[in-house]
Amino acid sequence: MIAANNPNLNSWVQIPENSDFPIQNLPFGIFSTKKLSPRVGVALGEKIIDLNALGELGYLKDLDIPTDAFRNSVLNNMMGHSKLAIRDLRQRISDLFVDTNSELQTNTDHHSSILIEQHDAFMHLPIKVGDYTDFYSSEQHAYNVGCMFRDPNNALLPNWKHIPVGYHGRASSIIVSGTDIHRPKGQQIPPNETQPVFGPSRLLDFELEMAFITFDGKPLGQNISTAEADDYIFGMCLFNDWSARDIQKWEYVPLGPFLGKSFASSISPWIVTLDALEPFRVSGPDQAPKVLPYLQYKEEKHLDIKLEVAISSSDFDEHVVSRSNYKYMYWNMNQQLAHHTINGCNINCGDIMASGTISGPEEGSYGSMLEISWKGTRPVRMPDGTERKFIADGDSVIMRGYSSNDKLRIGFGEVKTKVLPTI
Amino acid sequence: MIAANNPNLNSWVQIPENSDFPIQNLPFGIFSTKKLSPRVGVALGEKIIDLNALGELGYLKDLDIPTDAFRNSVLNNMMGHSKLAIRDLRQRISDLFVDTNSELQTNTDHHSSILIEQHDAFMHLPIKVGDYTDFYSSEQHAYNVGCMFRDPNNALLPNWKHIPVGYHGRASSIIVSGTDIHRPKGQQIPPNETQPVFGPSRLLDFELEMAFITFDGKPLGQNISTAEADDYIFGMCLFNDWSARDIQKWEYVPLGPFLGKSFASSISPWIVTLDALEPFRVSGPDQAPKVLPYLQYKEEKHLDIKLEVAISSSDFDEHVVSRSNYKYMYWNMNQQLAHHTINGCNINCGDIMASGTISGPEEGSYGSMLEISWKGTRPVRMPDGTERKFIADGDSVIMRGYSSNDKLRIGFGEVKTKVLPTI
Repeated sequence: MIAANNPNLNSWVQIPENSDFPIQNLPFGIFSTKKLSPRVGVALGEKIIDLNALGELGYLKDLDIPTDAFRNSVLNNMMGHSKLAIRDLRQRISDLFVDTNSELQTNTDHHSSILIEQHDAFMHLPIKVGDYTDFYSSEQHAYNVGCMFRDPNNALLPNWKHIPVGYHGRASSIIVSGTDIHRPKGQQIPPNETQPVFGPSRLLDFELEMAFITFDGKPLGQNISTAEADDYIFGMCLFNDWSARDIQKWEYVPLGPFLGKSFASSISPWIVTLDALEPFRVSGPDQAPKVLPYLQYKEEKHLDIKLEVAISSSDFDEHVVSRSNYKYMYWNMNQQLAHHTINGCNINCGDIMASGTISGPEEGSYGSMLEISWKGTRPVRMPDGTERKFIADGDSVIMRGYSSNDKLRIGFGEVKTKVLPTI
Repeated sequence: MIAANNPNLNSWVQIPENSDFPIQNLPFGIFSTKKLSPRVGVALGEKIIDLNALGELGYLKDLDIPTDAFRNSVLNNMMGHSKLAIRDLRQRISDLFVDTNSELQTNTDHHSSILIEQHDAFMHLPIKVGDYTDFYSSEQHAYNVGCMFRDPNNALLPNWKHIPVGYHGRASSIIVSGTDIHRPKGQQIPPNETQPVFGPSRLLDFELEMAFITFDGKPLGQNISTAEADDYIFGMCLFNDWSARDIQKWEYVPLGPFLGKSFASSISPWIVTLDALEPFRVSGPDQAPKVLPYLQYKEEKHLDIKLEVAISSSDFDEHVVSRSNYKYMYWNMNQQLAHHTINGCNINCGDIMASGTISGPEEGSYGSMLEISWKGTRPVRMPDGTERKFIADGDSVIMRGYSSNDKLRIGFGEVKTKVLPTI
């Protein structure tokens, strides 16, 4: 077991019960305050540990990461020092904040410069994103979409159980939680017509996804195996893959989604390390037909992460519309990364790879309004009596996620995005 | 007319007849030598102008771009100083090297540090690529593909004449001319079978394309009009969109090309500014049905750029397999950029947008082996007697392009890539 994951550790910093950020989590993000420029922080309870301050005060001097890597507006520089260096850093932070260690605990004059209140901080997009890839790895989601748009008897396309199907997405429009978006506009084809019209999307949707963020990979031409994949994954975050169903429907044949997706994708601000998630490994589904050797894997490579989606607006408080779980994935991250690189494609520090919509096996666990409202045929009632088939202007979509067992809870916080009218 | 484009200008640097790089071109690239670290250079005849040396010797001091922008391994920093600043820079370089100006011409002791022989230089990938988008904008190419894989009577899909169809590509695997690639491997579905097999691609192909490189755009949520598009385009290069047809065929439904493309895309090392190409504007095809207002444009926005593709190997010299022209595009760059941003998608400095395969109206002008060999049914004979349906290990693919009229030739040099066996 990774020492910092020990569920019996307690911090001398007070952690509220059911916090997403106990001392066993220690996720990384970029924050600023009225006084502090953007820098690397680590969430601990309701506080943020300022790693730049921690470094400047000499607490990180035996590590391989120089302090200027923390005085940075993205995590990439820090990540460039390797997974092992970050593992050591996380262990050192754990050691400094555990209640059995007095080193920093008793230096109370350092506390105010090292520990920042989360409610005083502004969170930034934590990664300079290189390439962004979106997979399509939840069987129930692929099945639901296949049922709606093709044939329930042949809902999955022939390649789906052989390939973790994926496509390249738009990196520039990835935004952090709290950033409002405008309803996209574009070409759509009205029902039963042959000529497109232009206007704001009428079928704006969320997609509940998780994403992982990579370290630098191998040189172009080489591949990363399923056994090696963990070494190339820094951590994970919540991911809302905003989708304009009407724009997507008209454009996506034959080359895939483009403007129906590229207007925005929202991520949660704290990147939870893969190390912190190790206690929540579970086995995945049996894969039949048997996958090709390069996609086979050993040990448990799925993760039990409870997920939920809520909608709120000025007229009503948060209303949960879906409860799902990342464990429902058919293809795991190791398989996705092995597939992505099997042709020699290189990955870089800061690439983001998202799961695709995560839909569970029953109604109530579907990961998009398309599925929840079944193409608009089953509108969802909100607390103020209004109905939603898709997302309305003024709505905020909130996604949350956490892993838990009887000893420990490791959470992701939230990704919340408000939809403003078209410009 | 842009003063630096005046076809009557001559340089005091000797320029070979039919050079791609007369004083009216002045394309930007990144070069190094045994003694010099990577830096910004400008091609002039058979020389490279070292902009860092030019700046350090005080010749660029009245410009808005500081010299350290040239002491850089990518062009992005320089490009970040705006299109107008780069226009001024190009004009200043023109002024310094025109034969009627003695300022630098007579300072002969500066010449050896400013002018580097191209054959002594190593060219680097000139751009830190943000996002890469590939369009599908040649009607003949879309028609040919539609004929081969669908129905000659309905070769174009319903959206094709309404939308400059495009998709997101992989930025990390964009490489510069001279970088060898390995044949990709992956899943393929043998003819008449239902289960995929794994192995090296047997249908490796080039795609003859041009690409443009952007400046920073507008904030997320805003769009760039066709009239504004020129202001956001830095320049153009040759682009070989390597494609593994067998991998692509099995994977691409429903989310588009992925591993069939992402193993490599090759670009030429010199970025020719859009300013330098202005003398070669031509009108495009009549677009019927009429496109939606946001895709309509004024003036001539197509470009006459002559293109050719050759194959060489250790057994034979270059053999030309295609002669095409960028003017054959149905959708121009202004329309592509207007479409790309109409949903509010933001663009950044260093994004690359490629045209899609450029096929002319007749055989001999097709831009891929898929079309040239018509799906392998019409093999192409090489000078050594061997045949090619697709690209063989050991082959090099060379693409060249230039614009010309009776007074002037503005060229792109070449992009040359050798295919090595699968690792």
